[in-house]
Amino acid sequence: MPYQAPLRDFSFLLGDVIDIDRYSNVPGFADASFDLVQQVLEEGARFAEGVIAPINRTGDQEGCKWNPDNTVVTPKGWKEAYHQMVEAGWNALSSDPEYGGQGMPAVVSMAFGQMTAAASAAFSMYPGLTHGVYSALHANGSDEQKAKYLPKLVSGEWGGTMNLTEPQCGTDLGLIRTKAVPQADGSYRITGQKIWISSGEHDFTDNIIHLVLARIEGAPAGVKGISLFVVPKFLVNPDGTLGERNNAKCAGLEHKMGIHGNATAVMVYEDAKGWLVGQENQGLRGMFVMMNEARLGTGLQGLSIGTAAYQAAVEFAKDRLQGRSLTGPKNPDGPADPIIVHPDVRRMLMDSKALIEGGRAFVLWTALHADLQRSPDEAVRTKAEDYMGLLTPVLKAYLTDRGFHVASLAMQVHGGSGYTEHFPASQYLRDARITMIYEGANGIQALDLVGRKLAANGGRAIMSFFGEIDGFVAENGSDEAIKPFVEALAATKAKLQDGTFWLMQNGVQNPDNAGAASTDYLTLFGLTCLAYMWAMMAKAAQAKVAAGDADPFYAEKLTTARYFVERVLPDADAHLAKMKTGSATMMALSAEAF
Amino acid sequence: MPYQAPLRDFSFLLGDVIDIDRYSNVPGFADASFDLVQQVLEEGARFAEGVIAPINRTGDQEGCKWNPDNTVVTPKGWKEAYHQMVEAGWNALSSDPEYGGQGMPAVVSMAFGQMTAAASAAFSMYPGLTHGVYSALHANGSDEQKAKYLPKLVSGEWGGTMNLTEPQCGTDLGLIRTKAVPQADGSYRITGQKIWISSGEHDFTDNIIHLVLARIEGAPAGVKGISLFVVPKFLVNPDGTLGERNNAKCAGLEHKMGIHGNATAVMVYEDAKGWLVGQENQGLRGMFVMMNEARLGTGLQGLSIGTAAYQAAVEFAKDRLQGRSLTGPKNPDGPADPIIVHPDVRRMLMDSKALIEGGRAFVLWTALHADLQRSPDEAVRTKAEDYMGLLTPVLKAYLTDRGFHVASLAMQVHGGSGYTEHFPASQYLRDARITMIYEGANGIQALDLVGRKLAANGGRAIMSFFGEIDGFVAENGSDEAIKPFVEALAATKAKLQDGTFWLMQNGVQNPDNAGAASTDYLTLFGLTCLAYMWAMMAKAAQAKVAAGDADPFYAEKLTTARYFVERVLPDADAHLAKMKTGSATMMALSAEAF
Repeated sequence: MPYQAPLRDFSFLLGDVIDIDRYSNVPGFADASFDLVQQVLEEGARFAEGVIAPINRTGDQEGCKWNPDNTVVTPKGWKEAYHQMVEAGWNALSSDPEYGGQGMPAVVSMAFGQMTAAASAAFSMYPGLTHGVYSALHANGSDEQKAKYLPKLVSGEWGGTMNLTEPQCGTDLGLIRTKAVPQADGSYRITGQKIWISSGEHDFTDNIIHLVLARIEGAPAGVKGISLFVVPKFLVNPDGTLGERNNAKCAGLEHKMGIHGNATAVMVYEDAKGWLVGQENQGLRGMFVMMNEARLGTGLQGLSIGTAAYQAAVEFAKDRLQGRSLTGPKNPDGPADPIIVHPDVRRMLMDSKALIEGGRAFVLWTALHADLQRSPDEAVRTKAEDYMGLLTPVLKAYLTDRGFHVASLAMQVHGGSGYTEHFPASQYLRDARITMIYEGANGIQALDLVGRKLAANGGRAIMSFFGEIDGFVAENGSDEAIKPFVEALAATKAKLQDGTFWLMQNGVQNPDNAGAASTDYLTLFGLTCLAYMWAMMAKAAQAKVAAGDADPFYAEKLTTARYFVERVLPDADAHLAKMKTGSATMMALSAEAF
Repeated sequence: MPYQAPLRDFSFLLGDVIDIDRYSNVPGFADASFDLVQQVLEEGARFAEGVIAPINRTGDQEGCKWNPDNTVVTPKGWKEAYHQMVEAGWNALSSDPEYGGQGMPAVVSMAFGQMTAAASAAFSMYPGLTHGVYSALHANGSDEQKAKYLPKLVSGEWGGTMNLTEPQCGTDLGLIRTKAVPQADGSYRITGQKIWISSGEHDFTDNIIHLVLARIEGAPAGVKGISLFVVPKFLVNPDGTLGERNNAKCAGLEHKMGIHGNATAVMVYEDAKGWLVGQENQGLRGMFVMMNEARLGTGLQGLSIGTAAYQAAVEFAKDRLQGRSLTGPKNPDGPADPIIVHPDVRRMLMDSKALIEGGRAFVLWTALHADLQRSPDEAVRTKAEDYMGLLTPVLKAYLTDRGFHVASLAMQVHGGSGYTEHFPASQYLRDARITMIYEGANGIQALDLVGRKLAANGGRAIMSFFGEIDGFVAENGSDEAIKPFVEALAATKAKLQDGTFWLMQNGVQNPDNAGAASTDYLTLFGLTCLAYMWAMMAKAAQAKVAAGDADPFYAEKLTTARYFVERVLPDADAHLAKMKTGSATMMALSAEAF
């Protein structure tokens, strides 16, 4: 049984938990009633399950092939699947209708995105990067650039990429050397090498629009001298047809542990023609539109790969007959019981289920706040913007960490079979591992959280988050039926608050304390977010049960909520204890002592 | 810089911590003074670093090739390295001198084993399996079998394998179908298929001795009807020369995520000639000699791969220049600081260092007890045997879990580079993952621990372990200089004891409670073992410091001990809290709810 989209869970989250029909005053939602969204996601599920999932494994086995003429051949069937996708408009779900998009809310596109990333992470990166370029140009491009590029990016006729990394700089973009020389016609000549460019070259589209960070001659050193350029593979004539081949070429592909179906290109720009996007030396700001979107997309991807891996593990655990239940045979007529009867197998599946369902809620709840950034209510808008800043690093790092963990659990459930490439577990594990690294390694997300996001606007975002949780606890604390979940949330939030105050007191006097605490703090933050999601889900499920709804889904949701509190949340104390030990011991050894 | 053997640490552990010269009354130690052992390990380090490490990566890239004539070609240079190894006698360090071995203690062979497994895990499995066959035949074979096989296995002229798994049975050996039909000449005809046979076929040796579990016609069902057979690839003539090719053939190799250099064979036996080893229907008991050895070897392997991965991460972290230290530039003349200055990179390296050095002590301390099973003192012998039973599952599962974790941290330190196959991090991660699965998946180790080992002989082993720790705490508790380490040990041991009592009270009434608690309990056990190792190491290091020894090694060891207490041990509470929630929620859902 291949990947199955979690439609029932989406329906619960969007209908019962988030209740999207409450937001009809927000742009995008007016035309996205819960009923319509259900239909869209059902259709999307058919596409993800029927068209994308079947090409995932062959894509891993075949990989992409680079040719000496700088072209790249994607795995068999991928081009066709891409064309089916763009013909149906799936790539443009949330894009601006002015440029041909469907204008759906982010909650819809991020539900659909989970399905495509679970069906094939490597495949979904092609439209994902294109959408990122769309967003960056939409936010920062000139009217002419928007008119020239956006319709084709939205239609999927052209692809897009983001070019940041160079051999000498990954995280530290201040070291960028790619240079841009101004030309008399207002364009620039771009020269340099960019590496690890996802979807950098392929055979899906006639043109590829590269967004490239480069340094204009004479610009200040460091990140303050970086500008953003749009560099098309083929120049675009005034009438929109394709002109000359630009000197932006793929010089090779990386040989990677996973996501083999995605072409990770070495891009060489030699006097390639490019145009400035936004202001000179403001390139990082412009690229951050794309990077923030990519970070959310990567968190979603980690969760999604974990989801697919979990499903494969469940299937294996139900089918594989080994040993007998400790409490007596459960399959007495068979040679052995299915391994799902064994508590330790159950533990791995329940850990996964609690993390995945909690993470799924976290993604959609965050997507809701992305949508609320366009609310007509200024207070709602401000809070939503604050949340997006605060939660993006948490979502990216926590969900990719946990996604990889779930993929590893899925392999463990498979036993030796999982280590062979005859079963899907290996691909999920290998694919999931990159999500912890790219779009800002998880340690960078943690630094972003403690170093920038917490303190922004005098800590307004985190205080707002704490206030919301306090409100939820106050409102629901007396409800006996959901008390364990509300109390667990209150206790976890108190730990996060404790950690936050510790950071305020100790991080400023010695920034190494903040760095040393950052990953444990972020993980504690992720646990708090999931505790909140589980409390909200328990509340919604309990309301259904109390109303006499006999669908076992709700009672099962409450059981998983209980498991989360019992078996996942206890880690919170350890993270708080670790971070509060500070940086002294961590930083004590000389480099030579390692 | 490729793999560097941790000779300084071995010297500290064998000299200052374990002090092997105290054991000269135990067989093997009389001829293995600390000074001699040092020389042996220095020589061994040269071999591992100079001969084995260089072929590890090409072995991963090339893999093994199966030919339709049932032969297997190993990667280039592997055969030559193997011959160098056996010519120098490295494979026979701890084998019985009666059969040509060197009779060295297990502490020596397990120190050497760490070096070879770190240099190349896939390569070291070939002599590792051969040694396992040697041990099983040494313990259970007839005199004739010993005379026929042991000298050639010890010399490395022949290889060996263990054949347990069949397609329908991995963990559950009761389902074995391979059958053995008695022949008039006392031999048996073996027919069946075995899968995942490590080192199953190769071009290193003239002959391969397969130990095969099979069911004699008419034997009882389940594990009580399994017998052990020796099935040589080539039959052996009375004069020791090779005779007829036996019908034991490699029908193909598994395509695996890692350990590509080791041939994981599908073995097909068709009326292959074999001979019973030990008693009829006592095959599992005979095979357990080999399995227990393999479990220790696998724990050692997980640790060793983690060690090599950590070393690669350290090298990368010192070389890679990205960003500036939060407390001001540390490399002001360079374009950026080496990333080892960043606390979160430091966190990953220190986590690894604390786990690896603690694990290294744990392996050697366990190896000491393997040796003490031959002590002339019966009480020492009994305790050592008890410990080996109790600690084998802990060492196997805890060190492989942590080894994989360390390999994943090493990839994270590498960032995007680590995900490409240009750097060694991917191979270490892929190679390490199997150690959690084979030789009994880690969940099986946890069940073995809580279901069999704890209760054996009325809990004698665990009480003995607790008593030893209590003795250490009583003896050293008043030493102010090492108080933090002794107190942390006492506190962690108290948690393990709490968990042990919980299991006694709750596991018997409902075995699912034991199963549900097993992995957290085992992990808590592993943490306790490492806490004890770190307390012993801190004591030895502190004694040197107090005596005025200026070698910075000792102060560094104390720093790492402190880090272990501050940043690793806090997980103990979470494991105890989780296990004590029992199995009710974990087992509540129906299989359909997943």
